[in-house]
Amino acid sequence: MALLGAGRIGSIHGGNVAKNGHARIAALYDPLQVNADRLAGELGCEQMTPQQIFARDDIHAVLICSTADTHADLIEQAVAAGKHVFCEKPIDLSLQRARQCVQRVSQSNCKIMVAFNRRFDPDFQALQQRVEAGGVGAVELVSIISKDPAPPSVEYIKTSGGLFRDMTIHDFDMARFLLAEEMISVSAQAACQVDAAIGEAGDVDTAVITMTSASGKLVQISNSRRASFGYDQRIEVHGSDGMLVAQNVNENTVVAYNQSGVRSAKTLSSFRERYAAAYRAELDGFVRCLMGEAVTLPGLDDGLRALMLAEAALLSLQQRRTVNLTELD
Amino acid sequence: MALLGAGRIGSIHGGNVAKNGHARIAALYDPLQVNADRLAGELGCEQMTPQQIFARDDIHAVLICSTADTHADLIEQAVAAGKHVFCEKPIDLSLQRARQCVQRVSQSNCKIMVAFNRRFDPDFQALQQRVEAGGVGAVELVSIISKDPAPPSVEYIKTSGGLFRDMTIHDFDMARFLLAEEMISVSAQAACQVDAAIGEAGDVDTAVITMTSASGKLVQISNSRRASFGYDQRIEVHGSDGMLVAQNVNENTVVAYNQSGVRSAKTLSSFRERYAAAYRAELDGFVRCLMGEAVTLPGLDDGLRALMLAEAALLSLQQRRTVNLTELD
Amino acid sequence: MALLGAGRIGSIHGGNVAKNGHARIAALYDPLQVNADRLAGELGCEQMTPQQIFARDDIHAVLICSTADTHADLIEQAVAAGKHVFCEKPIDLSLQRARQCVQRVSQSNCKIMVAFNRRFDPDFQALQQRVEAGGVGAVELVSIISKDPAPPSVEYIKTSGGLFRDMTIHDFDMARFLLAEEMISVSAQAACQVDAAIGEAGDVDTAVITMTSASGKLVQISNSRRASFGYDQRIEVHGSDGMLVAQNVNENTVVAYNQSGVRSAKTLSSFRERYAAAYRAELDGFVRCLMGEAVTLPGLDDGLRALMLAEAALLSLQQRRTVNLTELD
Amino acid sequence: MALLGAGRIGSIHGGNVAKNGHARIAALYDPLQVNADRLAGELGCEQMTPQQIFARDDIHAVLICSTADTHADLIEQAVAAGKHVFCEKPIDLSLQRARQCVQRVSQSNCKIMVAFNRRFDPDFQALQQRVEAGGVGAVELVSIISKDPAPPSVEYIKTSGGLFRDMTIHDFDMARFLLAEEMISVSAQAACQVDAAIGEAGDVDTAVITMTSASGKLVQISNSRRASFGYDQRIEVHGSDGMLVAQNVNENTVVAYNQSGVRSAKTLSSFRERYAAAYRAELDGFVRCLMGEAVTLPGLDDGLRALMLAEAALLSLQQRRTVNLTELD
Repeated sequence: MALLGAGRIGSIHGGNVAKNGHARIAALYDPLQVNADRLAGELGCEQMTPQQIFARDDIHAVLICSTADTHADLIEQAVAAGKHVFCEKPIDLSLQRARQCVQRVSQSNCKIMVAFNRRFDPDFQALQQRVEAGGVGAVELVSIISKDPAPPSVEYIKTSGGLFRDMTIHDFDMARFLLAEEMISVSAQAACQVDAAIGEAGDVDTAVITMTSASGKLVQISNSRRASFGYDQRIEVHGSDGMLVAQNVNENTVVAYNQSGVRSAKTLSSFRERYAAAYRAELDGFVRCLMGEAVTLPGLDDGLRALMLAEAALLSLQQRRTVNLTELD
Repeated sequence: MALLGAGRIGSIHGGNVAKNGHARIAALYDPLQVNADRLAGELGCEQMTPQQIFARDDIHAVLICSTADTHADLIEQAVAAGKHVFCEKPIDLSLQRARQCVQRVSQSNCKIMVAFNRRFDPDFQALQQRVEAGGVGAVELVSIISKDPAPPSVEYIKTSGGLFRDMTIHDFDMARFLLAEEMISVSAQAACQVDAAIGEAGDVDTAVITMTSASGKLVQISNSRRASFGYDQRIEVHGSDGMLVAQNVNENTVVAYNQSGVRSAKTLSSFRERYAAAYRAELDGFVRCLMGEAVTLPGLDDGLRALMLAEAALLSLQQRRTVNLTELD
Repeated sequence: MALLGAGRIGSIHGGNVAKNGHARIAALYDPLQVNADRLAGELGCEQMTPQQIFARDDIHAVLICSTADTHADLIEQAVAAGKHVFCEKPIDLSLQRARQCVQRVSQSNCKIMVAFNRRFDPDFQALQQRVEAGGVGAVELVSIISKDPAPPSVEYIKTSGGLFRDMTIHDFDMARFLLAEEMISVSAQAACQVDAAIGEAGDVDTAVITMTSASGKLVQISNSRRASFGYDQRIEVHGSDGMLVAQNVNENTVVAYNQSGVRSAKTLSSFRERYAAAYRAELDGFVRCLMGEAVTLPGLDDGLRALMLAEAALLSLQQRRTVNLTELD
Repeated sequence: MALLGAGRIGSIHGGNVAKNGHARIAALYDPLQVNADRLAGELGCEQMTPQQIFARDDIHAVLICSTADTHADLIEQAVAAGKHVFCEKPIDLSLQRARQCVQRVSQSNCKIMVAFNRRFDPDFQALQQRVEAGGVGAVELVSIISKDPAPPSVEYIKTSGGLFRDMTIHDFDMARFLLAEEMISVSAQAACQVDAAIGEAGDVDTAVITMTSASGKLVQISNSRRASFGYDQRIEVHGSDGMLVAQNVNENTVVAYNQSGVRSAKTLSSFRERYAAAYRAELDGFVRCLMGEAVTLPGLDDGLRALMLAEAALLSLQQRRTVNLTELD
């Protein structure tokens, strides 16, 4: 395999390939030389340009971990070269470009995975399996709470595509994953409360999105760019026979009792720790798929659908009305 | 005091007067004779018509626990007779009639309380006090989860004014209570998932409402007419410095560990049990107010504001758009 | 009813009689006039000497809430006068005197209840019922954690009979209540760690007691005179099919999430609050028994057995060995 | 490194060496050829006899994971050959033989670690660090709950040395680790309740042990060979300023709410999963120590002390009295 992008997320996936046992990073590329040098050293692999990588017969798959604006191009080039693709979300910040990309590679036999890591989180997976098995009866209302511990830099915000395309996109995908059906309408409310500079950059940092699914179920998403207590990642699924809740993950199980109350450990605050198992499982899933196992992986269509929901949410926010997904066709 | 209405809620308030020690139910009225007889027996009080009650000099206050369509008339008559008023929500199902009532009694010196019992729940009160004291820093997002254990009869639904005026009204009030400011816009999404007969009666049974406050904070409310596991009444207040959550109240503290997992007790399922302390505290608050203590009680304006939010939610649902409260002026 | 003793515990029981509805405190006595005046005022009852009380035909029962050294005498006198008796633990600090008392009243038809209030705690009662119903299969190990929030004064300690007779006695009774069988051996370890003055007074303040029941089950009790975080009152019952745990009761359900962790409310710290429902239920149970209902109440034999276990624990501590209950015969 | 013993525990440590990155298993030995073949295949290492291993200059350390009766001999031989030693508990089932072994290797410069894995559990380590940092003030009472999910075979029981030497030995070590001081007396009570065959083999399956430390603190241990709900491994440390509790580890964070209550996930039931992080951390600690880092590891003295406590507990059980550790000198 080769790694395109050796930043924060690239080094997570690169490390997980190393632990996988059935795959190996043969080469990597990063335009930022310091990143490339560091990770190539850690993984003990060569450095090559994307073109060199695509030209190599003994590299069977690429992991696209570069900036969002390069994803669509790299997917197209990799597929043209016959490589399997593991790509970070989003396909592209532009829905139009993403659609074009999806269409261009639609005839290929290459495996293409869009890395929605939360589908692989053990807790959310246990939740999904129990929902699917009828654990709450007929699902009626899904609540996804998803808050980052702290806001990114305003520089990041400016190129991120905005809260919905950058952060909520995970929650849009989670809603589709849990309900196993499409959303048909979106209504979004949002505010800039965490950092005024985010507002000046034209983005929001707190949002509540409500969606209706094809069968009429309701989904609500709460987002914030800041949760001072950690990485707040919870899901509630309410149905005719009960409710299932995936709670936050804490640093340890130690509980302290004293005069000020009963204190449990802090909620994990880094995405790296919180989703360590998920990152590993998604990489393992990709490898198992390449080895011929029948594994269901999130693909380009999932990437596109999540992006459409982000687009609809943005439109809803601007026009202060419920937006039907059909409006985006 | 006199009790107008001797049904389910009338008997709760009547019982709490008996326990209060500083007040006494002297008389009651209920058009349903069986109710009137039963409760008059329990409380050891006389039966009188509302007119007889209003004419009595030694009755200083009335508790209006009759059907919603009689509230506005009884408030006006009681105030005209110089009685203090403790009135169940809503003031009236019609916003116009409620406004008229509020205006007509606006010059009176009588104390008028609208019985939003949840403001008196010890857990929610602890939450409100800590929020007010800066426990989460600047509030950014409030989530109110409010689900009944089981839907009422369709007959009840038909005269209830609909989910927003009947059930969500408590949550609208809670949002104003917690944020100590007004809501300026409302967006509602809803569905009929619990009982098709509710939909045939023109109502919904599952809803998600999002509001924005005057200072830009976000509030989301989740409602369902059915929570098979009990009375689901939780509140989360997320702010710049953390989050405060008022959790559900369980039947007891016993936890069972066995092969199927770790099982805590069931969530309390009757409003009577869940809000027993709140009902008692609101009655005590009313009595203390009459005795001259400086107690802040929810009043007619609070009743009106909650009703306006219900009206706005209904409009939002019908027109599939965010409604500004100013549209209702 | 009449109340003998108008101190802290007397006023709890007196108040609960007032709430009961089927009984009334007609008279009370306390050698400390200030106590007697205060409570007689609150309850609106007369003051009489014990002799006057025993002589009254219209007083059917007495609640003995006086100091421990008067219990046995008052039980005997009350029973001689044909009064039913509700007596605080212990029967007497001397096992010999307690046995004599029990024997002297053994022929009487009067109802005599020893007020082991914890048997009436709703949580512990739920626990006991589930254990009895086979909720853990065959019981193998019971752990009773029982710690006071703060040590009493050394003056109290000196007349208390020591930790085992004063505090552990509740836990000895609880073990018998939960297992529904007798203990046959006791082994105690203890230390003075909370307050050196307690040690100087010849007592201990921290203890671990292990008992074996007739059928071979193990029971362990942990005691401390101080739990800075509140009134630590928990029970674990471990059996062949699982474990049941009655947890502490917290002040409210509000949970705070912030940078230092997840903080629940403080454990209730006053016995008055923690066992409010238990005190009320035990009084109600006594009244129901007097009214002819078939209620199982802890009686003189239970009081005696708990005292024997305290005696055995003391002997074990002194002789550093396991003591068989038969040694006390 | 070389591995002596390729059974259940040997394969855990072997796997952790593979993950460590700074060490490698060069050879292994197991008298059971099927075990040796399987693990040598997995680890890609040679098979050698212990004598061949001790003779190799390029093998710097051995991991002794063989049966308990071979530990002392292998420690002595390894040290004689100049190898560093990582040895599973116990040093030997015989206290005398263990003492002899410790004395024989006392002059060596080899690093010798006795693998008390629980000292390396992240939760227990967080607990220990907070206790050491004064998190509960002065420690007064430590409660260690340690129950296996299911009893081993009677064949295992017969060669295990009995509950105290086989299972409680971890808890004896934990008490010393948490209190950072020696125990001076032991009192044990036990029963055979889980499996009559265990009793016929002369062992017990349920036990409560109470110890006093040199400074007078109390420690209680609860053991059972069976906890139907999983691997029950909890610790409570009660002190002058509060209490710290390390709770059980559950399979996931999903909580289910339905008509029968609130159900959390099952407690982890395999020692392999429950202590996976601990096994890894202890191996890493050993490697870091060999690489010259200043790491505090449990050593031969710790192994000996834990064994002495097991011996004292056995004596206490037989003689039904508190045993002073000095009696074993």
